[in-house]
Amino acid sequence: MQETRLDIDRIRAARRVIAPVFLDTPLYRCEALEPGLGCAVSIKLETANPVRSFKGRGSELVAHLLTGERAVVCASAGNLGQALAWSGRGRGLDVTVVASRFAPATKLDRIRALGARLELVDGDHELARERAAAIARHDGIRLVEDSLDIETCEGAATIGLELVAAAQPFDAVLIALGGGALATGVGHVLKALAPEVEVICVQPLGAPAMTRSWHERRVVTTDSTDTIADGVAGRYPIPAVLADLLLVADDAVLVQEESITTGMRMLLDHAGLVVEPSAALGIAAIREDRDRFAGRHVVTIVCGGNVDVAAYHRWVGAT
Amino acid sequence: MQETRLDIDRIRAARRVIAPVFLDTPLYRCEALEPGLGCAVSIKLETANPVRSFKGRGSELVAHLLTGERAVVCASAGNLGQALAWSGRGRGLDVTVVASRFAPATKLDRIRALGARLELVDGDHELARERAAAIARHDGIRLVEDSLDIETCEGAATIGLELVAAAQPFDAVLIALGGGALATGVGHVLKALAPEVEVICVQPLGAPAMTRSWHERRVVTTDSTDTIADGVAGRYPIPAVLADLLLVADDAVLVQEESITTGMRMLLDHAGLVVEPSAALGIAAIREDRDRFAGRHVVTIVCGGNVDVAAYHRWVGAT
Repeated sequence: MQETRLDIDRIRAARRVIAPVFLDTPLYRCEALEPGLGCAVSIKLETANPVRSFKGRGSELVAHLLTGERAVVCASAGNLGQALAWSGRGRGLDVTVVASRFAPATKLDRIRALGARLELVDGDHELARERAAAIARHDGIRLVEDSLDIETCEGAATIGLELVAAAQPFDAVLIALGGGALATGVGHVLKALAPEVEVICVQPLGAPAMTRSWHERRVVTTDSTDTIADGVAGRYPIPAVLADLLLVADDAVLVQEESITTGMRMLLDHAGLVVEPSAALGIAAIREDRDRFAGRHVVTIVCGGNVDVAAYHRWVGAT
Repeated sequence: MQETRLDIDRIRAARRVIAPVFLDTPLYRCEALEPGLGCAVSIKLETANPVRSFKGRGSELVAHLLTGERAVVCASAGNLGQALAWSGRGRGLDVTVVASRFAPATKLDRIRALGARLELVDGDHELARERAAAIARHDGIRLVEDSLDIETCEGAATIGLELVAAAQPFDAVLIALGGGALATGVGHVLKALAPEVEVICVQPLGAPAMTRSWHERRVVTTDSTDTIADGVAGRYPIPAVLADLLLVADDAVLVQEESITTGMRMLLDHAGLVVEPSAALGIAAIREDRDRFAGRHVVTIVCGGNVDVAAYHRWVGAT
């Protein structure tokens, strides 16, 4: 394949740097989910760790490479902020996180609890990105840009190495698509080491910028987003990330909000997992296109579990 | 220490026989739980696998040693039955499971879905044990007796090896106590390799037979049980298992039903995990004796996640 910005040898080396608590996460068939989906489904579970998302893989790599520095700043929809706070705390690194004041309260609370300085902006994630960049310039400290910075992609890519090493072969992997770190990371490894696996990105219809960009092969922005999947609700795709995604993704699909909440409920009832909306995108994609997946073995990456409790129960309609 | 029936070398060897999907399960600090508990809490997660409980470790060992046999029978409260069905299916072994008709429907459904023959008895787990023994005698096949059969203990004991290898030291481990396979298994390994760790067994007040037996150092039976924690609701402790437990447990405590449901709710809200009542016994024990654990680092084994959805939501009071 044409070359992305990612490198398999660096990704392999990343495993030696990332705290083991984020690596070698569970990968298992969940047959209880399957009657509702019509295909074999395996879960790659990225929520059973101290920050309840896959972002620790990338933040560990970032923090390791910052050894000797005093401070770092990032914009975050909530999960990168927690992960960077966790990785920085263990290394004596001052972490500033800029987030939207509309981010889930539980994500913001956890960022503070992990000892990071949290600054809220009165706008969405794109405004938080601008503010984080301004802080970095003013303070002369490293700005971590999710999906643009190669460490965030190559950290996430270590999931790909674990998928490739799976005991059971699989036909397709469903990956939540936001900024693109997870999709380009996992996609790169699969295309390099298991090119027969179909790499399918999934985004909400209400936040379609990256998916539209992938289909049109050029950056397409949107004026707003309208989805409960806060973790993937960007409006401005990053050109370099899109270029990588064009090389490693076989498809990018959009799903409805109702499918996302149905997916969340299915993961609750049949897998016993509380997941954030982004983590249910894969199940949502199967629900919306059963014929495509019928009889195949599909892996879905359950990428995060940080949700506000009240909103979660409202969404899944638990009684 | 005095010798139990378990053997560290056999336990180490068991790791090579057990399907990797059951091994090296997540072990991680869950700081979001801690404000409500007053101590550092780590979760050893045994639910992210194809049968959603730790029982696959033992069933794999049983099934491996039955290579060449055609059939096997066990009594089960539900989790061993699923695990043995899973392990038998992959090896062409006919599995019969005898269970109480009052066992959670979801456990019974999963046993059937995994291809085992399920026979229900009109009584509790102790009656199922009698019936399974009768089937084994009649059919001339192997009877698997949970906690009595050394494979079930040594399979569970592989959790202990993983705890001992943990990156972060810990002060105590909380273990659900039912028949005793999990407690004697994990306890044996800790007493052998990390004797400074306090091994604390936890049982519901409504099913106290093994705990009372441990305190009185002789088998104490009860006429009935009254607890939602179906996985640990035995009435007839097995003498050989009690003898082992006396050698490896530092304490055995009883907890109230309300503490169990509170623990389940805490694991749902702060760890994102749907657990069965037995898996919340550790959190319940901390809640009931905060002073004992204050400032310490406690590991709780989240041993199973198979619950009836409706009962679960009723117990945790989710809205």
